[in-house]
Amino acid sequence: MNGDHGGQEAGHGVTLEDLRKKMADFVKERDWDKFHSPRNVLLALVKEVGELSEIFQWKGEVPKGLPDWEEEEKVHLGEELSDVLLYLVRLSDICGVDLGKAALRKLELNARKYPVQQVSSKDDAILLDEKTTNAHLSTDLPS
Amino acid sequence: MNGDHGGQEAGHGVTLEDLRKKMADFVKERDWDKFHSPRNVLLALVKEVGELSEIFQWKGEVPKGLPDWEEEEKVHLGEELSDVLLYLVRLSDICGVDLGKAALRKLELNARKYPVQQVSSKDDAILLDEKTTNAHLSTDLPS
Amino acid sequence: MNGDHGGQEAGHGVTLEDLRKKMADFVKERDWDKFHSPRNVLLALVKEVGELSEIFQWKGEVPKGLPDWEEEEKVHLGEELSDVLLYLVRLSDICGVDLGKAALRKLELNARKYPVQQVSSKDDAILLDEKTTNAHLSTDLPS
Amino acid sequence: MNGDHGGQEAGHGVTLEDLRKKMADFVKERDWDKFHSPRNVLLALVKEVGELSEIFQWKGEVPKGLPDWEEEEKVHLGEELSDVLLYLVRLSDICGVDLGKAALRKLELNARKYPVQQVSSKDDAILLDEKTTNAHLSTDLPS
Repeated sequence: MNGDHGGQEAGHGVTLEDLRKKMADFVKERDWDKFHSPRNVLLALVKEVGELSEIFQWKGEVPKGLPDWEEEEKVHLGEELSDVLLYLVRLSDICGVDLGKAALRKLELNARKYPVQQVSSKDDAILLDEKTTNAHLSTDLPS
Repeated sequence: MNGDHGGQEAGHGVTLEDLRKKMADFVKERDWDKFHSPRNVLLALVKEVGELSEIFQWKGEVPKGLPDWEEEEKVHLGEELSDVLLYLVRLSDICGVDLGKAALRKLELNARKYPVQQVSSKDDAILLDEKTTNAHLSTDLPS
Repeated sequence: MNGDHGGQEAGHGVTLEDLRKKMADFVKERDWDKFHSPRNVLLALVKEVGELSEIFQWKGEVPKGLPDWEEEEKVHLGEELSDVLLYLVRLSDICGVDLGKAALRKLELNARKYPVQQVSSKDDAILLDEKTTNAHLSTDLPS
Repeated sequence: MNGDHGGQEAGHGVTLEDLRKKMADFVKERDWDKFHSPRNVLLALVKEVGELSEIFQWKGEVPKGLPDWEEEEKVHLGEELSDVLLYLVRLSDICGVDLGKAALRKLELNARKYPVQQVSSKDDAILLDEKTTNAHLSTDLPS
């Protein structure tokens, strides 16, 4: 999304709390709170994940950085990623989950579940890498 | 997730950039970059959305705030919400999308697409509300 | 979908093999085989599940039989259910899975995993029902 | 799934009506009808789509026929495809949709929406193919 609307700074300082508040205000101003039950918002999120998948569906394998994508397609991708994020933030809010805190905690749990291997030689690295690979393939780690 | 692991402050200041960097470091330290192609991470995200849905699947309608849920179940919910978030942040990163910036832009687009109705009486409010409701039902707005 | 396009018999005799063959022919006639890699079709399926979810997303709880739905909406629902089915049949085919056979086998596995409880009184029924409920809630049974 | 449980014939004759009835009986025998509201079953389906995606998530591009997969993994794939199918059949049933009929109708609609191109030379074929490709990429066709 770099440069997709000129002159604005990057979104590096955007907090989950900023987005939570903006979403809550947006919904309240339109009197849409009555629609935002947890399962309604969850299904809306599933729908947006479908739209995100649609962007990738006929492309075969896609390299990192999307070097061959048109700018327009990248902007569209940013919109679908955002839709998923905004509903995720909203779902967390109406469920009483502090998403930022939960994400930091989950990162800690993951770090403990998958400790960094110490390797001292190339051969060890390969062996350990195989183990890591298998762990990776057989589990549902989120990173 | 309030109070689910004592003594820690809330996650209000957590930025998307914080999470992006933590995920990138986590993956790099484990030499998992080779697994993190866009479509691999997208499918991992879909899997986590499935786990999020599983939490809600047999419950029927669930009120906001989840008043009847056990603390353990709320912690689990926070973990699944986090897994979706972390993969979403990771997918954005490897696609070269500034997710915070994209989300702010999408919120602006939504605000323009669904302008707040000005109402001055209860009757007007009801009429406008019906229009809003129909717009809501017939569109894929993300909020 | 009953009565949505008059005069035609019900689809009771439709086999999975009928649909597999029709999809394979459809794709071949249009020279689309090159697009139908397993992960492309999987992502297309995820997209259709999103569209199916969209139909239910703002509705709150919906009773069986959809008594309050307009005919047009039911027809739309039938189309989205069909899109998911057709991609599922297609994915199975290109992966070399005999879906009908696999489904019968899975039904047998489920029947063994969740044996029917024999109950002889109302009290027993309630007790067993609670156990069943808990099993139901804590597992990922597909039925 | 060919040969994954010896001696049984292929599932070619399995109809959607067979599966619908088996699922309805299975649920009734266990007194689980009370859990099978449309949105409960829909979320269960989303969860199974997540499990299906998990099988493909770290694999990169996968060729048709899955030549390098272990037999055990193919059996697992058949189970997840079946779980999605069984919930899809169940969801259709409780919504009053004749899924076989709806699928045949959708195939007809697709055939009309994407007519087979008649081509008489290699050059024409390439040109038409490009058009077909673009149509394919820009639409949500289910095949």
